[in-house]
Amino acid sequence: MNDMTRIENLDVGFDVPAIPGMNEADIQTPCLVLDLDALERNIRKMGDIAKKMGVRHRVHGKMHKSVDVAKLQEKLGGSCGVCCQKVSEAEVFARGGIKDVLVSNQVRDAAKIDRLARLPKLGARTIVCVDDLANVADLSRAAHKHGTEIECLVEIDCGAGRCGVVTTEAVVEIARAVHAAKGLKFSGIQAYQGAMQHLDKFEDRKAKIDIAVAQVSDAVEALKKEGLACDIVGGGGTGSYYFEGTSGVYNELQCGSYAFMDADYGRIHDKDGKRIDDGEWENALFILTSVMSHAKADKAICDAGLKAQSVDSGLPFVYGRKDVEYVKCSDEHGVISDPNGVLKINDKLKLVPGHCDPTCNVHDWYVGVRNGKVETLWPVSARGKAY
Amino acid sequence: MNDMTRIENLDVGFDVPAIPGMNEADIQTPCLVLDLDALERNIRKMGDIAKKMGVRHRVHGKMHKSVDVAKLQEKLGGSCGVCCQKVSEAEVFARGGIKDVLVSNQVRDAAKIDRLARLPKLGARTIVCVDDLANVADLSRAAHKHGTEIECLVEIDCGAGRCGVVTTEAVVEIARAVHAAKGLKFSGIQAYQGAMQHLDKFEDRKAKIDIAVAQVSDAVEALKKEGLACDIVGGGGTGSYYFEGTSGVYNELQCGSYAFMDADYGRIHDKDGKRIDDGEWENALFILTSVMSHAKADKAICDAGLKAQSVDSGLPFVYGRKDVEYVKCSDEHGVISDPNGVLKINDKLKLVPGHCDPTCNVHDWYVGVRNGKVETLWPVSARGKAY
Repeated sequence: MNDMTRIENLDVGFDVPAIPGMNEADIQTPCLVLDLDALERNIRKMGDIAKKMGVRHRVHGKMHKSVDVAKLQEKLGGSCGVCCQKVSEAEVFARGGIKDVLVSNQVRDAAKIDRLARLPKLGARTIVCVDDLANVADLSRAAHKHGTEIECLVEIDCGAGRCGVVTTEAVVEIARAVHAAKGLKFSGIQAYQGAMQHLDKFEDRKAKIDIAVAQVSDAVEALKKEGLACDIVGGGGTGSYYFEGTSGVYNELQCGSYAFMDADYGRIHDKDGKRIDDGEWENALFILTSVMSHAKADKAICDAGLKAQSVDSGLPFVYGRKDVEYVKCSDEHGVISDPNGVLKINDKLKLVPGHCDPTCNVHDWYVGVRNGKVETLWPVSARGKAY
Repeated sequence: MNDMTRIENLDVGFDVPAIPGMNEADIQTPCLVLDLDALERNIRKMGDIAKKMGVRHRVHGKMHKSVDVAKLQEKLGGSCGVCCQKVSEAEVFARGGIKDVLVSNQVRDAAKIDRLARLPKLGARTIVCVDDLANVADLSRAAHKHGTEIECLVEIDCGAGRCGVVTTEAVVEIARAVHAAKGLKFSGIQAYQGAMQHLDKFEDRKAKIDIAVAQVSDAVEALKKEGLACDIVGGGGTGSYYFEGTSGVYNELQCGSYAFMDADYGRIHDKDGKRIDDGEWENALFILTSVMSHAKADKAICDAGLKAQSVDSGLPFVYGRKDVEYVKCSDEHGVISDPNGVLKINDKLKLVPGHCDPTCNVHDWYVGVRNGKVETLWPVSARGKAY
């Protein structure tokens, strides 16, 4: 009895794409598959790098939204905690047993602030970013009300063009207010340069981070003069961690995508001009998809479209194949150019998504595979936690 | 006691963005909001149009993935059933009480075919598309095994370039095979021209559908000569229903987006050169978002990024506002250009998403509002049902 027959007989539904122990070939598509060996190698490698650079690594949980992956990063990569972007995500990680959680974002809504202030009661060190004096007062009121402590990082906009203040004066002003506020603790600086992570050339990325480091260094020095020490100077991503990690200014990295990799990150080049998915990081995340129509000789249609991924950063590529190409995406379908007609109905392809973060967010499960077998099934624990 | 205080006291979590009865102003963001009045008007209008044209309307459930919306379309719009794209979606609709379900797609995987064959046991008429003789045999075997009947539409690729055969000969060959197969019933043709729906000009869309109608008509005539009548000749979308509906060839429309509208559809023009969101259909679906940072004077940051929408068809626009513009999207943030600095922290904006289908698929809930109050909360019942 093959696995499919077993599944039919067990009457297993579509709520899970696989069952631990089954053959990789029998996984239901489309779904997310993790190559556990590759994932573990990526996690160990980044842990070793951070250790060698003498900085902490606070892994970015917004990428995978998975308590299981975060715990693996703790265990194999020595990560000091998790960052995430929403209070609802932070709750998932805290409930899941992560003891040190940074919401690397602003929290402004009254109900969300109230929830944030209760997060320490779930057993997690709770850190948040601020870029506005009014927010300091609101956070303080909530922490005081719940008898908890919220640690605050002043966010510097060092080039991403989103949240964060741009002058050292503003940093110092907000830090002082945090320091003086009941229920809050000033813990340092958040300075993530998100806009440069995907620049193709190493030198272009370095130039952007040089500017960021100078800006952050100026703020750290000014704070020191005020008697305000930075426990955390956090930032850095998969396209830049070597700069921040050796800057002597940052002491906490916040890489996310390195663990899974994606097509958009894979395309950028390292200092030797090599793509970073060619040696630096392995593709560990795939969208598994099946051919479901081949009515035209040179074109196969697969079952992974816009509902199985985000194409904001471009189309996925077909892993390990030069003979076929994912050329078009609609809601439920992918069009695979198959000029030599090599694909057959129900053939499976592993797609490397254009952008891992929003792709993971449309799935409920990670199917962990090793040696051709399904080893584990992990929920995308914080999927949809956008509040 | 205002609603937020009530929520804090009730200890309501982030699993729901709102509670029926609360003020619209207190909804947690980001989330999907439905203007129930606009939705009902759109649904009634399309129902009236189909009735007047003398065709059935099988609403496309893949757009909203909601049993509640489908039932509203049945009640107010007289829809004859639902189409959807996956077996797992079909199961959700059948379990939810929809009695007539078309999977307007190919089903090729053995486990999925088995599930499809059991769908009639959930009380739903079950219809599926085929474009390959081998599939006919597989479907027949499964239906026979479960003692059920699967109705089949032969899919014609009339320009979308995805699934479907392209010659009348192939249509007839497959239809004959279906007709002869145990457990299957030949029920007609599926011919959706997906590639032209978003062409800007009415005349350009008409030219594409003229070709499709000729192609479908040829197949219908050939089938008739074989003694194979088409109970269903299905197709048509929000950008083309008037062509198929008056073609004398199609008898079932399959519109989806008309009910919610989105930015990409809104931009196309009707026969008088007017945008279709300016009179033909109302925007009923919005991503509600809040301003969460305004550290730069001319730029507000809101809490709806790539995790709250799909930008495959472009960025959202801010509904009812000319003074501010959504100009950039990253994972968790939207950048709102605010040249006159009119936005304040926690101000709410209603975004019209670029593409409704994949945007709905990243959310768990629709918050139905009327007259400034939350009237209902509907689950996105088939969210994530991609299998």
